[in-house]
Amino acid sequence: MIVLMKRDATKRQMDRVINKIKEIGFQPHIDHGISTLIGIRGDTSSLDPNIFYMDGVEGVKRVSKPYKEVSKEFHPKKTVIKIGDVEIGGSYPVVIAGPCAVEDERQLLKTAEGVKEGGAHLLRGGAFKPRTSPYSFQGIGEEGLKILADARAKTRLPIVSEIMNQTQIDLFEKYDIDVLQIGARNMQNFDLLKAIGQLKRPVLLKRGPSSSVEEFLLSAEYLLSSGNRNVILCERGIKTFETAYRNVLDFNAVALIKELSHLPIIVDPSHGTGIQSMVVPLTYAAIAVGADGVMVEVHYKPQSAKCDANQQLNLIQFKEMMRSIIR
Amino acid sequence: MIVLMKRDATKRQMDRVINKIKEIGFQPHIDHGISTLIGIRGDTSSLDPNIFYMDGVEGVKRVSKPYKEVSKEFHPKKTVIKIGDVEIGGSYPVVIAGPCAVEDERQLLKTAEGVKEGGAHLLRGGAFKPRTSPYSFQGIGEEGLKILADARAKTRLPIVSEIMNQTQIDLFEKYDIDVLQIGARNMQNFDLLKAIGQLKRPVLLKRGPSSSVEEFLLSAEYLLSSGNRNVILCERGIKTFETAYRNVLDFNAVALIKELSHLPIIVDPSHGTGIQSMVVPLTYAAIAVGADGVMVEVHYKPQSAKCDANQQLNLIQFKEMMRSIIR
Amino acid sequence: MIVLMKRDATKRQMDRVINKIKEIGFQPHIDHGISTLIGIRGDTSSLDPNIFYMDGVEGVKRVSKPYKEVSKEFHPKKTVIKIGDVEIGGSYPVVIAGPCAVEDERQLLKTAEGVKEGGAHLLRGGAFKPRTSPYSFQGIGEEGLKILADARAKTRLPIVSEIMNQTQIDLFEKYDIDVLQIGARNMQNFDLLKAIGQLKRPVLLKRGPSSSVEEFLLSAEYLLSSGNRNVILCERGIKTFETAYRNVLDFNAVALIKELSHLPIIVDPSHGTGIQSMVVPLTYAAIAVGADGVMVEVHYKPQSAKCDANQQLNLIQFKEMMRSIIR
Amino acid sequence: MIVLMKRDATKRQMDRVINKIKEIGFQPHIDHGISTLIGIRGDTSSLDPNIFYMDGVEGVKRVSKPYKEVSKEFHPKKTVIKIGDVEIGGSYPVVIAGPCAVEDERQLLKTAEGVKEGGAHLLRGGAFKPRTSPYSFQGIGEEGLKILADARAKTRLPIVSEIMNQTQIDLFEKYDIDVLQIGARNMQNFDLLKAIGQLKRPVLLKRGPSSSVEEFLLSAEYLLSSGNRNVILCERGIKTFETAYRNVLDFNAVALIKELSHLPIIVDPSHGTGIQSMVVPLTYAAIAVGADGVMVEVHYKPQSAKCDANQQLNLIQFKEMMRSIIR
Repeated sequence: MIVLMKRDATKRQMDRVINKIKEIGFQPHIDHGISTLIGIRGDTSSLDPNIFYMDGVEGVKRVSKPYKEVSKEFHPKKTVIKIGDVEIGGSYPVVIAGPCAVEDERQLLKTAEGVKEGGAHLLRGGAFKPRTSPYSFQGIGEEGLKILADARAKTRLPIVSEIMNQTQIDLFEKYDIDVLQIGARNMQNFDLLKAIGQLKRPVLLKRGPSSSVEEFLLSAEYLLSSGNRNVILCERGIKTFETAYRNVLDFNAVALIKELSHLPIIVDPSHGTGIQSMVVPLTYAAIAVGADGVMVEVHYKPQSAKCDANQQLNLIQFKEMMRSIIR
Repeated sequence: MIVLMKRDATKRQMDRVINKIKEIGFQPHIDHGISTLIGIRGDTSSLDPNIFYMDGVEGVKRVSKPYKEVSKEFHPKKTVIKIGDVEIGGSYPVVIAGPCAVEDERQLLKTAEGVKEGGAHLLRGGAFKPRTSPYSFQGIGEEGLKILADARAKTRLPIVSEIMNQTQIDLFEKYDIDVLQIGARNMQNFDLLKAIGQLKRPVLLKRGPSSSVEEFLLSAEYLLSSGNRNVILCERGIKTFETAYRNVLDFNAVALIKELSHLPIIVDPSHGTGIQSMVVPLTYAAIAVGADGVMVEVHYKPQSAKCDANQQLNLIQFKEMMRSIIR
Repeated sequence: MIVLMKRDATKRQMDRVINKIKEIGFQPHIDHGISTLIGIRGDTSSLDPNIFYMDGVEGVKRVSKPYKEVSKEFHPKKTVIKIGDVEIGGSYPVVIAGPCAVEDERQLLKTAEGVKEGGAHLLRGGAFKPRTSPYSFQGIGEEGLKILADARAKTRLPIVSEIMNQTQIDLFEKYDIDVLQIGARNMQNFDLLKAIGQLKRPVLLKRGPSSSVEEFLLSAEYLLSSGNRNVILCERGIKTFETAYRNVLDFNAVALIKELSHLPIIVDPSHGTGIQSMVVPLTYAAIAVGADGVMVEVHYKPQSAKCDANQQLNLIQFKEMMRSIIR
Repeated sequence: MIVLMKRDATKRQMDRVINKIKEIGFQPHIDHGISTLIGIRGDTSSLDPNIFYMDGVEGVKRVSKPYKEVSKEFHPKKTVIKIGDVEIGGSYPVVIAGPCAVEDERQLLKTAEGVKEGGAHLLRGGAFKPRTSPYSFQGIGEEGLKILADARAKTRLPIVSEIMNQTQIDLFEKYDIDVLQIGARNMQNFDLLKAIGQLKRPVLLKRGPSSSVEEFLLSAEYLLSSGNRNVILCERGIKTFETAYRNVLDFNAVALIKELSHLPIIVDPSHGTGIQSMVVPLTYAAIAVGADGVMVEVHYKPQSAKCDANQQLNLIQFKEMMRSIIR
């Protein structure tokens, strides 16, 4: 539920509304635009809107979507997330680059230096890898987080890595991982969402390959309603009948989410295609449709990568792509 | 990899093969049929089959599927799981029934007594509910497990309940929940699979709504390769373009899995349709296609249920269905 | 729109309603049950229901679905279609069997005699084959229709064959093909539907692999609203993300269509699976879910078939299946 | 099969290869690049490549894809289709614009003049409309073609209109419709493809909403192998589980088809989204990914359109979009 204040509402009038909200056991969320909006957090379906018609109040309305805090109705201003000097959701598209998995120090550092040189804003790399088969390479674990932190120290690129369950939170805190990635298969791991919702650390939430836009935004709502507003959405391709590529990147979702939500949204053309040669044109499309950035897999030697060898760019391809983007 | 012993192989010859397997750091899995098969567990892709050609060995072959221990090649005999007096995967279809969620003592007990009377073999009920929206009813938690255990004491029906993450294992042990259900959205929560793989407790693994048969069997492989062989598979409907019902029950998958795997497989027509009137005919189809049982949602008062009200049978409908099945 | 007459309405009162309907340019459809329903055919969205409240009228209601004549609301009695001595939609499941394609006289006759012996009710065989590739076998054309008619003469089995476009109608009339099959890829070939709607000849309408139940019933509505009420629906599997089998047979659709429509519906487990070993269990499921019959591909020598070799049963398999069904 | 001539092969050597091809009953397709490729049209699967190893021949290879003439292997040079002064597949993205359906003279002319002013290259409008329901507006038929031809005379924009079946070919010839559109639901209407393959007239072939890229290219192969090489492909969105928009535009397909085929491919963001506000960003994405153009629905008064009112741009929106594209 949203209380819209009049343009000339006084601080005192606002405080009375805020107190009323707290009095009945809810939490307010204040958004100062031309007029001030006071969102009421939580499940307000049983609240009577009339109790908020006080002096200075222009109107009260219900949020029409099942997600609340994620919606533009509730928070019209675009969310910009600052990570060091980088702004996600700001005025330029952000590029997150790095290997599928952290394999060893040399591999990560070579790649990190290369993507830094090419102009990447953040460095990605998986230490814990969710794999369909128990017999596939599962990542090098904590060692991978340590290598990432070292690479950050050397390149000054903030780092992004996937967290697989809530018992790993302390570990990710220990290495001060800048952005916690929640993978596509964990998008509806609700206990993980609730636990990460307790933190303030930025989160990169990937859309499940068969999740609707509404389900995706409701998973983000788990994070926001638990207290973490630093959520970056990521479209990474959906599962369809087509087998010629790994997934279908859903640019419709990007365009629609930009209408519905204030959260930044980026695109992952590596998982979204699974084919190296397709990554570059789809990166261009992502930027053209209005995404706030891309996350691309880059490896200094893709042919010897321990996972997703077919979809990783080499450093030359990455740098060429970056030059085209800047132009 | 599988070592097929000759029909007249001696115990000593067998032991030599078993010792060889252990010597090179692998674990054997023995299956006595007409001839004895000795499966070699784990990722054997780099093993040379020739090292096993010893006296008494008929042949050595690689398992052709990415899953090993789940496959019929590795373990040709059908797995039968005993829970109290009930056998899943045995000679009759098993019926698991109960409400979507445990709401309170009265609701569960009334329903449990009804389904027991109707002829159900196990009682189901969710204490922890994974819900798309953070604002939906999330289950009553530990209290629900306690109520389930009480209902078991009164009806002598073994109980099935969903576990949402590995930190809940102790709680499920405390109430001695007979079958741990891994929900569709957790089918690829690999850390949960590995943790439950450490137990011996029977597991009901639901197929993800967009998971392929191969992905489903690979998730089961996580459980078996971690040591838990008491796995019941459950087909609960897949996500398609169709919106007239909640999901499409995939009976092709049931027929195919019965060809590929020795594990029992049951069908959930409640989630597979989402529509009460469709549950009964699809239960008949499940049994006809050869499923080892069904899991149906039953509530003594469906119209007042806190979740999935539209798909739960009432007790009269359930009893009628049971009479038809028996006929 | 439906006019429901009172139980004691007189013939004269009924005639007045019928005349009123004709007067305003519509056509009535009369259904005598306990009370008489008079359906008003065509697009009645702009009609005022009040004009039909005359003596003897109990009530007037709009049909709530986008399809009208196909719905049970409009025509509550189940449609039974007679083809020779066979009844489709009657009291027993009908079995339509025969090869994917008519290849030559010997192949068809051998197969026809075999399926007749096994207990099939109708003989199927494609003379014109819609193929994804222009380089695949396209059927033997008119010659195939002739061979089918000969086989009918010898076995007395009525014949079913696919018609690919409306210019072929005369040809199908010439050989008096008993049932015109409209293939899945032509389900929304609306000009073909309108043309065949002009005939009285029974039609077997296959569901498109990505058509919703509503789209399917609206395609049937094209036939009924053009005048042909002898429509048999056929579920033949839908396209999903799964690649382990050709399609997923949608039994949910069968159960739902039986609730929504009076038309008979059969299942095609051959195209619905694409795998010979799966045809038999899915045939059992089709009958259990309540389908009015099945259509299965049978070939006296499947391994040498010119199309769909992997999904055709041989005669021994077919006869065994028929014995099980009868039991 | 492709015969690759040596760079220094003589005209005489080439002729000998060509004669050989004709001698054995096939047709050659010659493509002069740096070296000359001689494609052998039709199903060459049973041909022995060795018979073409003559003087001047560098090598003989099979085309690795099921489609031949559509592939870049067979015809490496990009196909450019000229329609009046417009080039499709050339150096700039082409814009086809106009209403969903031709409704009347005034509506079409107003819209045509508006899109001309905005910078459109071709005018589209449906005279025959394939509709899911028999009760929906089916187009105004021949009258619509006449109105289109008049609008062409006044604006000099070439015209595109959908042909629903092969019996309409004469009618489309009568009004000299510049581009014959084959709709998504007719993509696998093979008799229609064969008939239009006999013409030289440019064809716009829309991808079926559930057709794979391979099926799509094989439908194009029906046209090329029948003799019509003037084929423009059109991606118009695929059917998925998502219901927030009408379809999902598959930009992966666009990028992949540009790798596989020499045919031009355009994108239809109107059907691909079904939502007016999403058409503009997805048009930008289409151009960025490398499409040869877009087809957008524009109506001078969208709110009163007889079909697809929600997805048509008005003239102001269209002109703004065109200004952005040019920038």
